[in-house]
Amino acid sequence: MDVVNHQFQLAARPVGLPKPSDWHYTEGSVPEPGDGEVLVKILYISLDPAMRGWMNDSRSYIAPVGIGEVMRALAAGQVIASNHPGLTAGDYVTGLLGVQEYTVANGSAVMKVDTEHVGLPVYLGTLGMPGMTAYFGLLDIGRPAEGDTVVVSGAAGAVGGAVGQIAKLKGCRVVGIAGGSEKCRYLVEELGFDAAIDYKAEDVMVGLGEHCPDGINVYFDNVGGAILDAALARLARHARIVICGAISQYNVTDAMKGPSNYMALLVNHASMTGFVFSDYFDRLTGAATEMAGWLAAGKLSSRQDIAEGLENFPDTLLRLFNGQHTGKLLLKVAGD
Amino acid sequence: MDVVNHQFQLAARPVGLPKPSDWHYTEGSVPEPGDGEVLVKILYISLDPAMRGWMNDSRSYIAPVGIGEVMRALAAGQVIASNHPGLTAGDYVTGLLGVQEYTVANGSAVMKVDTEHVGLPVYLGTLGMPGMTAYFGLLDIGRPAEGDTVVVSGAAGAVGGAVGQIAKLKGCRVVGIAGGSEKCRYLVEELGFDAAIDYKAEDVMVGLGEHCPDGINVYFDNVGGAILDAALARLARHARIVICGAISQYNVTDAMKGPSNYMALLVNHASMTGFVFSDYFDRLTGAATEMAGWLAAGKLSSRQDIAEGLENFPDTLLRLFNGQHTGKLLLKVAGD
Repeated sequence: MDVVNHQFQLAARPVGLPKPSDWHYTEGSVPEPGDGEVLVKILYISLDPAMRGWMNDSRSYIAPVGIGEVMRALAAGQVIASNHPGLTAGDYVTGLLGVQEYTVANGSAVMKVDTEHVGLPVYLGTLGMPGMTAYFGLLDIGRPAEGDTVVVSGAAGAVGGAVGQIAKLKGCRVVGIAGGSEKCRYLVEELGFDAAIDYKAEDVMVGLGEHCPDGINVYFDNVGGAILDAALARLARHARIVICGAISQYNVTDAMKGPSNYMALLVNHASMTGFVFSDYFDRLTGAATEMAGWLAAGKLSSRQDIAEGLENFPDTLLRLFNGQHTGKLLLKVAGD
Repeated sequence: MDVVNHQFQLAARPVGLPKPSDWHYTEGSVPEPGDGEVLVKILYISLDPAMRGWMNDSRSYIAPVGIGEVMRALAAGQVIASNHPGLTAGDYVTGLLGVQEYTVANGSAVMKVDTEHVGLPVYLGTLGMPGMTAYFGLLDIGRPAEGDTVVVSGAAGAVGGAVGQIAKLKGCRVVGIAGGSEKCRYLVEELGFDAAIDYKAEDVMVGLGEHCPDGINVYFDNVGGAILDAALARLARHARIVICGAISQYNVTDAMKGPSNYMALLVNHASMTGFVFSDYFDRLTGAATEMAGWLAAGKLSSRQDIAEGLENFPDTLLRLFNGQHTGKLLLKVAGD
């Protein structure tokens, strides 16, 4: 092939928000698939808060991206050439394909998806990692009962929006926390949340007091920081806090802020439990089937916020951290 | 009666460590028991870290002690006069009797204890609130399995010592964290812990790495602060953190320090759960019976550190916070 493969490689470990010099934008040749491998043309790259953690040289649930390596990212694309018996050219797949235009992957490391009834971007959102994260975090760790008050932060993001909608399906009262009146309108009017708190305009403690008169039974946290402390101060007895992320803390340059109100766990006999999506690999199929059923029945709304052009990856990534997106943030790299 | 009743009343809400001017030491008359009440001569007063929290004007699991009120304390004493059908003069009882020499209590609000085989002080320690706190926190929340590594902070205190011994009875490897070589010797040689870390002389992170090569399965926290952060950094997958107290933080005058390593919960799919002893009132009898059996069989060691004289209450209370006690700290008020 004579086509060029553009990539974003990690050039330096960011201090605070990633800056342009933390990236190398490179041109290379398109690789050839070996035995059992497929060549994938990447169409959509997923922007996820977890990516910021992958850029740090610290012990976590997954090894950090090495300096000089292609930036890790979930992505969706189309098989161009296949040396794997389960895949043929033209198939659509998702996987950890990286921030680039083409990649070679082991055929068993990607997942074939059916785009006849569901658009490819949805497999990076509601039917992908964010949706599964919402599903398992809420249902397995949060264990909401009918009538419970469920609060979710980062509510207008891909995970938060799914958490709130699943909680509504389970008969809960749902309160979302998000930044800005447009996001709050989206939560209530489009996703069916019972209430939304605009943390940029309102005192979150006061808002939680108003919208959760009996306290919070399940708090699904994507943000950490002051909002986690506010939620701790409003727990109901035996509340469950689900620790999914801490986006307010991912770019701090001094020590991470721990939840200073954590003794509320003692007073309320409450728990705080963390997880990552990959803890649930063995149950993904069942979850995806249930989520797809809700989606097909119109019980789940799926929204993508799609930027375009691989060259815009660094700026698009920053939109995760400055709150300038609603729903699942994606970068469209090529048309199919 | 012509006898004088001395009391310690709360004169002011402490800022930081309680100081002499936070107390009123008063003389009054001995009250008369009304219908259903008993007059108790207090023999031993229990000094417990939770007392510091009761002195603050903040929402908690129990109302704060009011200014001008007798300081709340668990205590053990002897019934002097009874207008309650279940109790007679000479009976020994425990309850929230306060920091004073005599009190009148509703007969159903105190617990009669049998001192034939077990000394009265033990009912304020291993068979009292600290022992029950250890029992439920470890077994109900920590859920240790045989072979698990259990770490406990404040290990030479009444709760910590019981936690470690119960964990040993359940077949766990037990590591205690305490301040000073004498306490560490006590943990290993007298209580049978597998290892002890002297946080005043050693780097706790290094010690935990050495003594918990497979990570911590259960961490029972009495102290909070930097030691909680060190334990978070050494968790095994699916670890359970039991939040029982945070004595390092009870007297801070600025904001309480939250655990900045709490995202270790996410990486390890771990949980942090709080509780107070009173959450388990309906199961106290069974727990006390099991603990008494272990004690009688010599499987539990019970140690008291007994100061004398009601007038020494303020200084004795401070010994909880400067680490100058081993085992259950008590104040002997009178001989029986």
